[in-house]
Amino acid sequence: MNGADLLCDSLLAQEVELCFANPGTSEMHFVAALDRKPRLRCVLGLHEGVVTGAADGYARMADKPAATLLHTGPGLANGLANLHNARRGHTPMINIVGDHAAYHLVHDAPLTSDIESLARPMSKWVRRIAGPETIAEDVGQAWQAALALRGPATLILPADAAWGEVPPGGKGTPAALPAPVAPPVADSAVAAAAAILRGGGRCGLLLTGRALRADALETAGRIAAATGAGLFSQTSNGRVERGAGRVPVTRIPYPVDQALATLGHLEALILVGAADPVAFFAYPNKPSRLLPEGCALLRLAAIEEDLPGALEALAEALGAGRAVPAYAEAGGTAPEPPASGRLDADGVCALVARLLPEQAVVCDESVSSGRDFYRLSAASPPHDYLQLTGGAIGVGIPLATGAAIACPGRKVVSLQADGSGLYTVQGLWTQAREQLDVVTVVFANRAYAILQGEMRNVGVNSFGRNAERMLSLDSPPVDWVGLARSLGVEAVRVESLEALDRAFRGALATRGPFLIECLT
Amino acid sequence: MNGADLLCDSLLAQEVELCFANPGTSEMHFVAALDRKPRLRCVLGLHEGVVTGAADGYARMADKPAATLLHTGPGLANGLANLHNARRGHTPMINIVGDHAAYHLVHDAPLTSDIESLARPMSKWVRRIAGPETIAEDVGQAWQAALALRGPATLILPADAAWGEVPPGGKGTPAALPAPVAPPVADSAVAAAAAILRGGGRCGLLLTGRALRADALETAGRIAAATGAGLFSQTSNGRVERGAGRVPVTRIPYPVDQALATLGHLEALILVGAADPVAFFAYPNKPSRLLPEGCALLRLAAIEEDLPGALEALAEALGAGRAVPAYAEAGGTAPEPPASGRLDADGVCALVARLLPEQAVVCDESVSSGRDFYRLSAASPPHDYLQLTGGAIGVGIPLATGAAIACPGRKVVSLQADGSGLYTVQGLWTQAREQLDVVTVVFANRAYAILQGEMRNVGVNSFGRNAERMLSLDSPPVDWVGLARSLGVEAVRVESLEALDRAFRGALATRGPFLIECLT
Repeated sequence: MNGADLLCDSLLAQEVELCFANPGTSEMHFVAALDRKPRLRCVLGLHEGVVTGAADGYARMADKPAATLLHTGPGLANGLANLHNARRGHTPMINIVGDHAAYHLVHDAPLTSDIESLARPMSKWVRRIAGPETIAEDVGQAWQAALALRGPATLILPADAAWGEVPPGGKGTPAALPAPVAPPVADSAVAAAAAILRGGGRCGLLLTGRALRADALETAGRIAAATGAGLFSQTSNGRVERGAGRVPVTRIPYPVDQALATLGHLEALILVGAADPVAFFAYPNKPSRLLPEGCALLRLAAIEEDLPGALEALAEALGAGRAVPAYAEAGGTAPEPPASGRLDADGVCALVARLLPEQAVVCDESVSSGRDFYRLSAASPPHDYLQLTGGAIGVGIPLATGAAIACPGRKVVSLQADGSGLYTVQGLWTQAREQLDVVTVVFANRAYAILQGEMRNVGVNSFGRNAERMLSLDSPPVDWVGLARSLGVEAVRVESLEALDRAFRGALATRGPFLIECLT
Repeated sequence: MNGADLLCDSLLAQEVELCFANPGTSEMHFVAALDRKPRLRCVLGLHEGVVTGAADGYARMADKPAATLLHTGPGLANGLANLHNARRGHTPMINIVGDHAAYHLVHDAPLTSDIESLARPMSKWVRRIAGPETIAEDVGQAWQAALALRGPATLILPADAAWGEVPPGGKGTPAALPAPVAPPVADSAVAAAAAILRGGGRCGLLLTGRALRADALETAGRIAAATGAGLFSQTSNGRVERGAGRVPVTRIPYPVDQALATLGHLEALILVGAADPVAFFAYPNKPSRLLPEGCALLRLAAIEEDLPGALEALAEALGAGRAVPAYAEAGGTAPEPPASGRLDADGVCALVARLLPEQAVVCDESVSSGRDFYRLSAASPPHDYLQLTGGAIGVGIPLATGAAIACPGRKVVSLQADGSGLYTVQGLWTQAREQLDVVTVVFANRAYAILQGEMRNVGVNSFGRNAERMLSLDSPPVDWVGLARSLGVEAVRVESLEALDRAFRGALATRGPFLIECLT
């Protein structure tokens, strides 16, 4: 048995059964080993941004990590932007990055690079495999690190560790390891949070991670009902279970001024997995921190801790067991959209929110176009909501790809800004190859509209040639229908609400990948 | 005047007049400043892999660096693979990477990352701008570093350094700096090389960089004629001036066994800018170094030194001034290809080599499909040959894009493997927008054919489902014609030599971007 076979067996022992991949020459022994392990399903991405983004989407929905297979430093580099998103979204992932044989590195062959330096900023854990004899342990620890630290763990696999024979006397098939258990929060933190909430001021709970699953939200809702505290979530979260019958939370808006207004009344904020809220970007003469002066801040639980348990403990300390949460009521938020007329981004959001099927998985990289979707879909049928977590655009199509693989019985609705979608459009091909049940709704405004807005924020209201050339995508316009079809995904272009209504209903009624280009 | 304006003026002072860009919010003041400087031409790439690859192609042909504009760590990360190629190909480049305002970093906002750690492996020089007061000096030093060290120099631009006012008393418009002069080689190195060549054994010169321009090759050809030495180039080189009437060199083949055979007779090798030749990858039971045991190795000149001058000095020391080089004879190498019949990769190469117009710029990322093109085009009309230098696939389309911008009067012929082309296919859109005179010839074998070959090299001759799914691209096939058209580039699919002949001649006869999908 060689190291590559042992690596596969070590992944399978932890029930890592999905490998998103784009291999190269230095990984050929690993590919050959994967080929001997049909239980480990390999899914090709035509660019590593697709690979890592899909692994992110898969893990968010499967609640377990996938592996990725990346080709040396440049292959890893191509996947880093979506690793950044995964790290910021606290998604576990195990990256296997192939490298030259250890003895070859000294020769500085053309593909040699400092993989560790590239990996560290976007990984929670990095290790270079020393040889076939340590592979089982390395994989086990990578798996545990990904789960315990909640983020990407990166293993560098030298080619000679993959092709080298495992020394005799090894233990054969690796054993399943215990999954890391999220540690409970300290009693003192619970007591302190309870004391703040009992104080009766204008308090809020800021949630992210596992605190945004339906059961944890139920608990948070009881706390809110018992104490009058407001429930907030971060602007960006990996996954929210939401919709009619679930406990809604107020998401901190992305625009700084709106965020400041949302949080401006607070006297105390309790962090449940979340970070101290800060502006996404700095702006001249605007604050970095979003909380008002003097607002008390208490961390109930860090992201690695047991967030649902922390909320349970807090509810118990508050005697909130019988409090009745406020639920989102079906049809309560989304206004009946106009049944016809010219399409605009808000109209697309309203229509998708209204037609959203139960148990849909929404992947939202609609950026500025879809900013109203979250509000409009608050009372849509129960669904999961996945979004861009780290601000590195190009996650939407890959995220939907991975989520669809994790949830073969559910419809994935992928809300996609055009500029961001063009970053990793190759992911449509993977959707076609794997025949994934994804409907992609492209907001084709043919611009980096968010940046046009930001230019106005810095006082530039009329654009010269350079700004126009950098912020507009209309010359030439991208033909999303042709683009999708060229990659194997059927598609249609719509320019009216009626046409979108028909196309979206049609996509919901059939299985398989489909794309709707909305001219907005 | 703010820092961003001063940054633009500092680039313009060094005649950096091209900025390949994909900006984000943290770069808005820089974008606004660029908008005030129409002399600095901004070219948008829809993905940063296009941006850095185009800057590489531009600098190879313009013989001066372009700037890039990249958005924080993830934007840089997206561009790293082609920065790796630029670094390996010794292409000067000035990357401007926007970052948060300095005071915002402590808040660890979602887009924060360790940009230095990401930049260093693929840059020759990295600096974070301290504030608007140092920008002129920082840009000047970045420019000098890119030229002197021959590779990417990366400047990190905090948003507050861009928007901050330059302190009064500054010198206004920055002055032009002296361009770094490549240092001459030591007399002792010339004497040692001359002694080896006078010794009369089986010697070779291994060239890269500026040693592969027509004038330097002429000198090398005189040395070869006078001494009987063989002329070789690295497997991968940034730019070769070659074709009929120029001095040809033997490129070290990519496959290890062929490389060993090519160099196996040598008793001494003299390096002219090149590195000690090593295998691209390590393989079990094959050597890493490509030179035979006991072959003497002498470095005449390092890549940063004056390579044409080193060859001149060597020719003079050898009294080779009147020796007559062996030139490539027009029509001497390319066999008359069959005029008709089914298309295969070799047929495409032969036909393109035969029809290649004078002063074409060939950008070759044909990988395994086009491996014979270099030999077949040795006696094509004089042309420049640009190739993948670092093994990080996805450079071809961007490289052609940048080269076409540098050489508006010349035809760019982009030889593109399909798997690699799909990495940065977005570059076609930039070709369409800028109406660049590029004809892209896609070798559509619908596979990672090089990897299928490498699998056979590791002893796997029949592929199971996992290997098949990772190494084949035929399910579904990518429709390159539809893909190109969706991005604004007219295209045609050909399946016979006659059809290719017709399509290629047609593309040569007209200006503007065009793509030919060759089913091979």
